[in-house]
Amino acid sequence: MSKYIQTRTQALALAQWTQGIEPSALQDMLRAASRPGVLSFALGLPAPELFPVAEYGEALAQVLAADPRALQYGPPCERLREQIVELMKQRGVACKKEQVFLTAGAQQGMNLLTRVLLDQGGQVIVEELTYTGFQQVIEPYQPNKLAVPTDFETGMDLEAVESLLAGRFRPAFIYAIADGHNPLGINMSFAKRARLVELAREYCVPIIEDDPYGFLFYDGAALPPLRALDDQWVFYVGSFSKLLAPALRVGWLVVPEELITKLSIVKEASDIDTSTLAQRAVSAYLDRGHLTDHLPMLRREYGARRSAIQRALNEYFPEEARWVTPSSGVFIWVRLSREVSTTELLKLAIETEKVAFIPGSHFCVNGSATASQCMRLNFSHCGVELIEEGIARLSRVLKTLLA
Amino acid sequence: MSKYIQTRTQALALAQWTQGIEPSALQDMLRAASRPGVLSFALGLPAPELFPVAEYGEALAQVLAADPRALQYGPPCERLREQIVELMKQRGVACKKEQVFLTAGAQQGMNLLTRVLLDQGGQVIVEELTYTGFQQVIEPYQPNKLAVPTDFETGMDLEAVESLLAGRFRPAFIYAIADGHNPLGINMSFAKRARLVELAREYCVPIIEDDPYGFLFYDGAALPPLRALDDQWVFYVGSFSKLLAPALRVGWLVVPEELITKLSIVKEASDIDTSTLAQRAVSAYLDRGHLTDHLPMLRREYGARRSAIQRALNEYFPEEARWVTPSSGVFIWVRLSREVSTTELLKLAIETEKVAFIPGSHFCVNGSATASQCMRLNFSHCGVELIEEGIARLSRVLKTLLA
Repeated sequence: MSKYIQTRTQALALAQWTQGIEPSALQDMLRAASRPGVLSFALGLPAPELFPVAEYGEALAQVLAADPRALQYGPPCERLREQIVELMKQRGVACKKEQVFLTAGAQQGMNLLTRVLLDQGGQVIVEELTYTGFQQVIEPYQPNKLAVPTDFETGMDLEAVESLLAGRFRPAFIYAIADGHNPLGINMSFAKRARLVELAREYCVPIIEDDPYGFLFYDGAALPPLRALDDQWVFYVGSFSKLLAPALRVGWLVVPEELITKLSIVKEASDIDTSTLAQRAVSAYLDRGHLTDHLPMLRREYGARRSAIQRALNEYFPEEARWVTPSSGVFIWVRLSREVSTTELLKLAIETEKVAFIPGSHFCVNGSATASQCMRLNFSHCGVELIEEGIARLSRVLKTLLA
Repeated sequence: MSKYIQTRTQALALAQWTQGIEPSALQDMLRAASRPGVLSFALGLPAPELFPVAEYGEALAQVLAADPRALQYGPPCERLREQIVELMKQRGVACKKEQVFLTAGAQQGMNLLTRVLLDQGGQVIVEELTYTGFQQVIEPYQPNKLAVPTDFETGMDLEAVESLLAGRFRPAFIYAIADGHNPLGINMSFAKRARLVELAREYCVPIIEDDPYGFLFYDGAALPPLRALDDQWVFYVGSFSKLLAPALRVGWLVVPEELITKLSIVKEASDIDTSTLAQRAVSAYLDRGHLTDHLPMLRREYGARRSAIQRALNEYFPEEARWVTPSSGVFIWVRLSREVSTTELLKLAIETEKVAFIPGSHFCVNGSATASQCMRLNFSHCGVELIEEGIARLSRVLKTLLA
């Protein structure tokens, strides 16, 4: 790997940090897995057959017919900010419209917050197993990643967080996923939520709470997110990508009002604005009350898929496989107690049974090999029958490898 | 200004560079200018009455009806990349689909390229008067801005560029706008284009060519962009925002194929992907051949507005006012030879005559006061009658100030 790209005759110098971003062997494998016929549990894709196609199409048509300036540059849609305040109440969060910042999705939300908070070479507290998209966000800053252990059942090790904060470290923020953890699929207990927020307050270190899956819960009501416990030190990242559809590219932040101006400037520098058309269409969709039926339908459907994948794992997987039942989100994390390399397993699975997932080691911060006998399986994208079929296929590969 | 934001009880530490991003007095004035009744020449807005509302609405409906995965995450739309190759031919550019990278607009395109090319504290060659959105892009890198003089009639001073390159400087790139310069409204001569590209090649320094307005030309065919003269050292930034409408949030880059992988990773980290729906809808719009009529119509309409603003300036403005007829783009740059502060003028213009523009000094790199007697006027947003009315109003304020 080099910081120079060889062009026809001479070398083009790239930014230093890009040395670390060569595509990995995993990405090659996943490209292979996107071929037709491969049954994939790999990505966090929502189910396209559940997208509100007709309702969103009507909202688009209505908004376009009402005013051609739906296609113009524009300031953030005030009505949508109000609607998000209402939506956040369903998660037990009290906020004001002035604290809502609209984004082109959760990924951009994390980017903008990182831009405002993190210096080049700064420090970030992060779990040793976490969302790779977040790892990509901080990579260009070449940060000091203060990785804390992640328990497969209870999540972030808060004693480790405390000992970092009590020590000489001054992180720009703590990155946390309280519900439907990616990759672990677990929820943080209420006691841990309260303690984490307390630490943030005590040490004046903000938390970026990534909550793309918080509205997707399957066992009665979810716990309140971290933001419900503190309105000054928790910066909440939300998105319509998993609630409605990714291609809307509309998400939001809930942050202290003092941050809005800086975020606006960073957002303008990034991509000018979030599509006026998309903002207004989401707002029109919400105004028509469609989400009231849509969300319970999603919970029912994804809840059924969650049950299906557990049934299939119980039926087909070897006895030593372990997992925690996910109460939220779209992932289940499976541990194989024997020394199976899931990276090896994936290679074989794509080749022999045309089935894909993401090996646990892919989520490790600092490139450690923790979780090399684990795998992340998505259960939102495939329907119940394909889930059963896919787990049966995967178990055949696994048995070959264990034999 | 402080790098700390005072929250209710304690201080939140922000990234160092954010110290420079307090909102300016100009931004306050422009906010005032966005009130109803204010006639604005300030922003680079296209005319909403010329947006292809019906055709784009049909394209959206068609794409949604064809496949619900139009709302899913997705890889870049291959058909759209091919269509952009065809579109670039109209600008005299030969490129391959493998060199086309889709973005959420030109602003994002510049951001992604900067991410890949510029190190923290690195060097950039930039004109002393240039697009403020680009200045915002590089600001977080706290770069050494190597500012070269800009001639009001001929643009970038290439001798200054050469002497920087021949000296000890190693800039990450040169930022250039060859057509419809923002803010100057001028086009670069062919000889200067050729020379600039030659310098880039000679010193192995890439050029980021920002070309949002290159398709909008009013005096017969435009000159070929820099990218037509070199396919290895010129990175072209294009957008549908001014050709179709901003709220599509679809743009593109044309870059050496070797850069595509790095850009893909940076793009994914920024906002996952460009809306699949928007990509497919733009592609459907192009497939129906609508652009063939739409572009000539835009050139006719904006050309008429360009003539109208010059007529009005001739009729109403004092004799000492000077400008170059813009052959492309949406801006005209007016110089007042007397020592008028256009910042003062703007304040008065909003207060007394409800008319707005951007003062020349706003575009100065490194905060210099060059161009403080100049103003940038947009001629694409208002129709001919409002242009006449606005220039008449502005001239009254100007005469008061000069009296």
